[in-house]
Amino acid sequence: MSSSVNLDGEKTLRSGNDNNGDMSDEVVHSNPYSRLMALKRMGIVNNYEKIRKLCITIVGIGGVGSVAAEMLVRCGIGKIILFDYDQVEWSNMNRLFYQPRHIGLSKVEAAGLTLSSINPDVIIETHHMDITKVETYEFFLDSLETSGLTFGHPVDMVLSCVDNFEARMAINSACNEKNITWFESGVAENAVSGHIQMIVPGKTACFACAPPLMVSAGIDEKSIKKEGVCAASLPTTMGIISGFLVQNALKKLLQFGKVSDYLGYMALTDFFPTMTLKPNPFCQDNYCKIRQDEYKLNEKQQPPDNCEPAPSEDSVVHDDNTWGITLVSESEPEKSHEQDLSLPTGINREFTVDSLPCNEDEEVSVGEETLEDLQCKMKAL
Amino acid sequence: MSSSVNLDGEKTLRSGNDNNGDMSDEVVHSNPYSRLMALKRMGIVNNYEKIRKLCITIVGIGGVGSVAAEMLVRCGIGKIILFDYDQVEWSNMNRLFYQPRHIGLSKVEAAGLTLSSINPDVIIETHHMDITKVETYEFFLDSLETSGLTFGHPVDMVLSCVDNFEARMAINSACNEKNITWFESGVAENAVSGHIQMIVPGKTACFACAPPLMVSAGIDEKSIKKEGVCAASLPTTMGIISGFLVQNALKKLLQFGKVSDYLGYMALTDFFPTMTLKPNPFCQDNYCKIRQDEYKLNEKQQPPDNCEPAPSEDSVVHDDNTWGITLVSESEPEKSHEQDLSLPTGINREFTVDSLPCNEDEEVSVGEETLEDLQCKMKAL
Repeated sequence: MSSSVNLDGEKTLRSGNDNNGDMSDEVVHSNPYSRLMALKRMGIVNNYEKIRKLCITIVGIGGVGSVAAEMLVRCGIGKIILFDYDQVEWSNMNRLFYQPRHIGLSKVEAAGLTLSSINPDVIIETHHMDITKVETYEFFLDSLETSGLTFGHPVDMVLSCVDNFEARMAINSACNEKNITWFESGVAENAVSGHIQMIVPGKTACFACAPPLMVSAGIDEKSIKKEGVCAASLPTTMGIISGFLVQNALKKLLQFGKVSDYLGYMALTDFFPTMTLKPNPFCQDNYCKIRQDEYKLNEKQQPPDNCEPAPSEDSVVHDDNTWGITLVSESEPEKSHEQDLSLPTGINREFTVDSLPCNEDEEVSVGEETLEDLQCKMKAL
Repeated sequence: MSSSVNLDGEKTLRSGNDNNGDMSDEVVHSNPYSRLMALKRMGIVNNYEKIRKLCITIVGIGGVGSVAAEMLVRCGIGKIILFDYDQVEWSNMNRLFYQPRHIGLSKVEAAGLTLSSINPDVIIETHHMDITKVETYEFFLDSLETSGLTFGHPVDMVLSCVDNFEARMAINSACNEKNITWFESGVAENAVSGHIQMIVPGKTACFACAPPLMVSAGIDEKSIKKEGVCAASLPTTMGIISGFLVQNALKKLLQFGKVSDYLGYMALTDFFPTMTLKPNPFCQDNYCKIRQDEYKLNEKQQPPDNCEPAPSEDSVVHDDNTWGITLVSESEPEKSHEQDLSLPTGINREFTVDSLPCNEDEEVSVGEETLEDLQCKMKAL
């Protein structure tokens, strides 16, 4: 079920890095890292070579995940771990990465072969596996905790590039339990919108805190799986979402720029909604609530993290906002906090039926529906 | 100097298209076009198979152009023509597309081999050529006019993915002369910003109308070429710009969505400035002025083109705006037109020295400098 690609010695002529795979900043055509190390010289990233110490797990290596993996490998990441249970088909050829010679291979095998030939310095571990099954979920959990670059240490981040709700929920549960920051990503079945979202357990809303917002790109797995129904896809949209995903992952891990908590892409109008979602104190995921408590405690004990930009005024949570929900639309920076409770333009909820309150506890309206309503509907599914 | 890649028969098992390379919309795993033809079923693109009749020329197949070419080939474009004079180096490996096995090959040869194996239905013509030389420029001009999908017909669009001013000016002159719509693209040497810009001769500003705005991404060829100085690059930023470029090219050619005249990307903040630039009636490029006259005449004689969305209120040109310059910032949709004459946030001018008026003719201020000033400075370079 699992295999590792041995990368040693495949390209012995490769220069620009010593035997340890360290990065050279020499400005010569023979150095594969010269353009990356230039990020240091230009003051963009202070410690670019830190990337050689990082390990990222990618779940789902289809149109988004495969390109994200290639970007990370070309950036010189220390190690990537790939999970996927699918195989390469002709119908995948309209997206980047896989080539006709890969057809019939499992995606992890094809990706492993391609990625190791692109950059033999990267350790690539592949698992032909559906992580939503009971036994494989345990394996996945254990992998998150122990398969980092140094054996026995956790991975540094997870990128979710899956196409269904169950897999997203599995990743969410695992990352809450193991306290690992992850990015969710998605592309709509009409191929012209997509999004990425960063989930820092305890700090931002998890996938179980407010799921209707997470699947705002309109992915409807049930319709995709219906016989004879085929989701559209474009290499453009998927390439852009892959780029947003890895760019923000790099910003978070290498501590440069400002990471977007949520970044959407509406291809038809070139519109890019952004927002920030605070966690739900009544989240159904117990590990999420534990992480929230830890985060609050940590915040009280420590001064703000200097590595990240100070929170903008827009992200301040109101005292009367019991749910801690804060939506910050980049396109309306001057709006008052009161107005921010409606969703930014271009972000839609998955559920659009009338609200059916099922809990008389404190409620805060998110647009027309309460978070309670949405959770009830979700449970009913 | 020039070569054509013969694509026939490389993948005889490829299905989903008949002997003419027509697109099937059959929903089966063996159909490479099923996910693209789904765009029709979902009402996104009315006539997707039109792409099989299109020919696009790409000049510069480095980090942006090679990925743009791959996207078009995977989308099933009829024909692409590639111009580049560079060869593949180890220092290119931090960007998508080229692989270590290509090192030492010319970029056009490596790209031709890879692209033809990805989609043998696409006609790929390659030219190992610097189009800025006198004799090669003539060849390029002739190619634009006669190398379309049907011999003797013009190509449908040009994508500029070059990294220097001279090549952009050559493409600009040629496209003005041959009246061909083109997209300019660029990524800054610090790797964290980029842009695309559509130039429709006579309708929008050409590269000679307002060059300081076109190179706003901060590319400084002189510093790049200095010995020992190396521009930074990231596969993320370049992949995103490639995606924006091809997505907007597809929107223009297949008539769906709203094409962005200018779309910027600021990676550090995930900010995406947009604007529209009207042509300069005093442009130094004579063919630009001819196209402007033709466009005005055509506009008077014909009702507005129904295939494109009606211009928004923001793009209305003021009567007192002699230069016809309109800047529309997507991020400030409610602003009055008076305010729009300053550049949208995130777009900078190449020239930042004090203004030195050199012409007492009509002037309209674009932020702190006049267009006349900028033209004078450009001439002085």
